[in-house]
Amino acid sequence: MNQAVDTKERLLNSALDLFHARSYANVGVQELCEHAGVKKGSFYHFFPSKRDLTIAALDRQWEIAKRMVWEPAFSKQLPALKRLERCFDLFYEHQCGAKAKTGQVPGCPFGNLALELSTQDEAIRRKVDEILRECTRYVERMLRDAITAGELSELDVAATAEEMVAYMEGVMLMAKTRNDPKVIRKLRHGLPRLLQTERGVMAKARS
Amino acid sequence: MNQAVDTKERLLNSALDLFHARSYANVGVQELCEHAGVKKGSFYHFFPSKRDLTIAALDRQWEIAKRMVWEPAFSKQLPALKRLERCFDLFYEHQCGAKAKTGQVPGCPFGNLALELSTQDEAIRRKVDEILRECTRYVERMLRDAITAGELSELDVAATAEEMVAYMEGVMLMAKTRNDPKVIRKLRHGLPRLLQTERGVMAKARS
Repeated sequence: MNQAVDTKERLLNSALDLFHARSYANVGVQELCEHAGVKKGSFYHFFPSKRDLTIAALDRQWEIAKRMVWEPAFSKQLPALKRLERCFDLFYEHQCGAKAKTGQVPGCPFGNLALELSTQDEAIRRKVDEILRECTRYVERMLRDAITAGELSELDVAATAEEMVAYMEGVMLMAKTRNDPKVIRKLRHGLPRLLQTERGVMAKARS
Repeated sequence: MNQAVDTKERLLNSALDLFHARSYANVGVQELCEHAGVKKGSFYHFFPSKRDLTIAALDRQWEIAKRMVWEPAFSKQLPALKRLERCFDLFYEHQCGAKAKTGQVPGCPFGNLALELSTQDEAIRRKVDEILRECTRYVERMLRDAITAGELSELDVAATAEEMVAYMEGVMLMAKTRNDPKVIRKLRHGLPRLLQTERGVMAKARS
């Protein structure tokens, strides 16, 4: 690999690992450089500031999250409503994996930075907002597929998808606060219930 | 007021204001002392560390949250299921008030510290966990009252209450990430739907 590309990659990976394991503010540029095995001068060659690295790291984290969670979970190969279950299974597996390695449930990397930084850094807030909107779009497509397939009655797709992403973030917050990934398993049952409404009752639950 | 009590109070109030507006790590002991008009020596007279101040501030924040939100919202004077609506109204009002003052939606002070600090500070994580369990107990009592009053069919009270608190935290996270308190208004409609299930369908929605 080209050395410049490699240096940049290592800085991005260090940011992903360290911010997710601890927090943005708890990890300084010095530690990021040491973790990446990069000199401080090189850091500022690639990133004007820690904020710029963070925004690039969020883009990278979203690429990874899509590949590891959102694409496989929301695959057209799965019956639409099964995709939600698969998504929660993958959340659970990733948080279990992290806990096995570090002893701690790190939670959602996007939700973490949203709550730590939204009032302090407008550019980071906007970036996380954009990513959560992309998550919402995955859920919207699933809901439309479920309606088309007759798995679900008509409902307000945009509103329901937002509620579901809010619920996912809330569940990850509870799992992190309890330091217990089993919370994700337990609370997953709330998710399909968000589909049961005067507007649209899940066909399966009725039968 | 006794001067020692006053000094301690001012430090607690500064911690509440500054942590909620920004974050734990972004506010140092020096700034807390300046904001409170207290000398650094006095800080360490009352609190061995910033962490100890934070734990005391969380207890204080919970006292305030109970007085301002949880007690009035979950008052026995209100029909049980109305209490949820009232709770969301109060969340909305408080976040609107903060946004009018500072331009920013600060979100839930407990959720914020949970996501910033749970992997870094076990004592703070346990304290926030304890507070979220107390929130869950308010919702449990409301659900039991709703069942007794015939507003709700039998359901798993403990599990549903946890789902509801997770949802509340998720909604506050979305509102902060959007920097828009109206998100709370919009997503509140998801909450009663968590009550509609094979186990227990909300009587009102049926009629």
